[in-house]
Amino acid sequence: MKARPAAPSSEVVERAAALAGALRARAPRIHCITNSVAQAFTANVLLAAGAVPSMTTSPGEVGAFVKGCDALLVNLGTLDEERRAGIEVALAAADEAGRRFVLDPVFVDRSPARLSFARALAARGPAVIRLNDAEFGALAAGADERGDPSRLAERLRATIALTGARDLVADADRDVSLANGDPLMDKVTAMGCAGSALVAAALAIEPDPFLAAAGALVAFGVAGEIAARTSAGPGGFAVAILDALYRLNADDVRALARVSP
Amino acid sequence: MKARPAAPSSEVVERAAALAGALRARAPRIHCITNSVAQAFTANVLLAAGAVPSMTTSPGEVGAFVKGCDALLVNLGTLDEERRAGIEVALAAADEAGRRFVLDPVFVDRSPARLSFARALAARGPAVIRLNDAEFGALAAGADERGDPSRLAERLRATIALTGARDLVADADRDVSLANGDPLMDKVTAMGCAGSALVAAALAIEPDPFLAAAGALVAFGVAGEIAARTSAGPGGFAVAILDALYRLNADDVRALARVSP
Amino acid sequence: MKARPAAPSSEVVERAAALAGALRARAPRIHCITNSVAQAFTANVLLAAGAVPSMTTSPGEVGAFVKGCDALLVNLGTLDEERRAGIEVALAAADEAGRRFVLDPVFVDRSPARLSFARALAARGPAVIRLNDAEFGALAAGADERGDPSRLAERLRATIALTGARDLVADADRDVSLANGDPLMDKVTAMGCAGSALVAAALAIEPDPFLAAAGALVAFGVAGEIAARTSAGPGGFAVAILDALYRLNADDVRALARVSP
Repeated sequence: MKARPAAPSSEVVERAAALAGALRARAPRIHCITNSVAQAFTANVLLAAGAVPSMTTSPGEVGAFVKGCDALLVNLGTLDEERRAGIEVALAAADEAGRRFVLDPVFVDRSPARLSFARALAARGPAVIRLNDAEFGALAAGADERGDPSRLAERLRATIALTGARDLVADADRDVSLANGDPLMDKVTAMGCAGSALVAAALAIEPDPFLAAAGALVAFGVAGEIAARTSAGPGGFAVAILDALYRLNADDVRALARVSP
Repeated sequence: MKARPAAPSSEVVERAAALAGALRARAPRIHCITNSVAQAFTANVLLAAGAVPSMTTSPGEVGAFVKGCDALLVNLGTLDEERRAGIEVALAAADEAGRRFVLDPVFVDRSPARLSFARALAARGPAVIRLNDAEFGALAAGADERGDPSRLAERLRATIALTGARDLVADADRDVSLANGDPLMDKVTAMGCAGSALVAAALAIEPDPFLAAAGALVAFGVAGEIAARTSAGPGGFAVAILDALYRLNADDVRALARVSP
Repeated sequence: MKARPAAPSSEVVERAAALAGALRARAPRIHCITNSVAQAFTANVLLAAGAVPSMTTSPGEVGAFVKGCDALLVNLGTLDEERRAGIEVALAAADEAGRRFVLDPVFVDRSPARLSFARALAARGPAVIRLNDAEFGALAAGADERGDPSRLAERLRATIALTGARDLVADADRDVSLANGDPLMDKVTAMGCAGSALVAAALAIEPDPFLAAAGALVAFGVAGEIAARTSAGPGGFAVAILDALYRLNADDVRALARVSP
């Protein structure tokens, strides 16, 4: 990392603490172009948190949905011809209507065709890119960017949310490290995809993409920790995290958040 | 509402009470063309209630599935080209084989293309149309129909099942108001879609579409109330409503049904 | 059945007992071309058991995923044009990279077009075909094969895993009967599809397809029995079987396995 002022951790914690209440109060519409594996769980995460999901990918319809939404998620899992075409229509509509989007470049490390498409989308102004280590390694250009997410953030003028055992959120000027979450989150399909959707929901109510991304990931990680307390395994955990998001309150988030510069 | 005789509430309650037992005894095959978000939960609701779901949408195969089924669901969520083509094939097969269908015009208020397709389908003889207030407002023509579901029912010669905080079921001659259910039903994706599938299952064993629709919605709402007793949030609720449907008995339905003219 | 030496039951039990530990230790990548209803549950079963699923079906990408995987599942549910084309690409890649595959010919008894496609795939060297009675009856040729799965196994040089109230696993030389499982497994959508995926996971770490198939089905059935102890219905059961797979240990499998010649 190059030397830069860290984001005040307390600001991230306050955004995380306020998220659940704000989503319930404002019920933003989040349109998700996401993979077929993740659709139902993603919709349930958004509903539990207080947002209103829609999920169509069809090029003939997605424009109308995006124009009526408050933020957009573009997830590249199960990327077929229809999703590619739908994404083009959706980004054009988002651009026209001034809607921001989160890019989740699922498994770009596994498919050269998908990586090349992801690179083109990353250059079209996502507010946030949420990805894991392997995906980050594939998307970053050269050793400099691979060693420092803030450089990729700077080149793309986007917030990079790099999730794993610890999450790192960086834009060109700030970064923050998040330690919430539970290992069971890796044992449920679409957990990362749903986290990206929650970032999109935060983006609908928070102007600063860095604080939206970091706040949403803290809230999601706290919900995961609460869920893990009562879970015997990944089946129960996937159920309990929805209940935890539904009941999440600011005091729990403040008590459990682990945010450091 | 224009003045008309209300349906005897007791008849609706008895149909609802008999539904679970009849589905378990007869295990009707229900073919569902439904959106990709709703497929798994819809199949699980049908299985829990005693029916046998199938879910393919492919134009090359759906005709064979529809001819072998006992009733058909046509749900317009995530409406892509394949689904449009599959619906045409399915309706032709249903017509030929004398199978009735339920239409669920998901989100027609959000997409003009979908609304226009839904209007064409509504004119092709659905036995029941299950929809929410926003969808009803879009599908109804003019202030008269918007103010009175029975007018839309009369024009389309269909039963209209308008669901919300209270459900209203109307055909040209009868209407009934249903007060069962729980607010958590709005916090789980595909709950409405699954309710429409349960109406299709009821249609497979009940000749009168009005009683099939009202009976299925009462049974579903009662299962929701039973599920809510033990649920900490929408995650647990989505699990518990499947268990409640699986164990639903006539006495519970009679004790909990809230049906009024 | 023609007279043949039965497979030693103890060998099957030991493979079943070792499966969970081996999957957790080696985390094989399993690529699944499966139906849209089954994708999420299948991915969750694989994750709970210790494998790493991927799920894309797109012809433009599936080749790269198959080359990077350890075993492949080809499930014919919701068979659309993209899935057909994706399967061709996947099988070519599997052949080139030396990856073995499990074929799950879902509902071939319901669709002549699907049956004809399944017959062509069955002749392309699946290591294992997992199917139920109705599907077996459609796929087998003539009364001889219908009366004896080992004849179909012999003709196709594949292991046949015929699942139902009891499971029968047969290749040209051996067969074994498995009595684990619970009736609730029939009340959850995609349970059979997920079982086929677990067979594919076993195939990634066990050279003998017969032992892989039988071992995986015993482990899955034992997990089902453990799950049923705490389940009030199919909703809770679908959650609990994921937790049971996640916690499955060799001693439980040895204690509960019911394998007979």
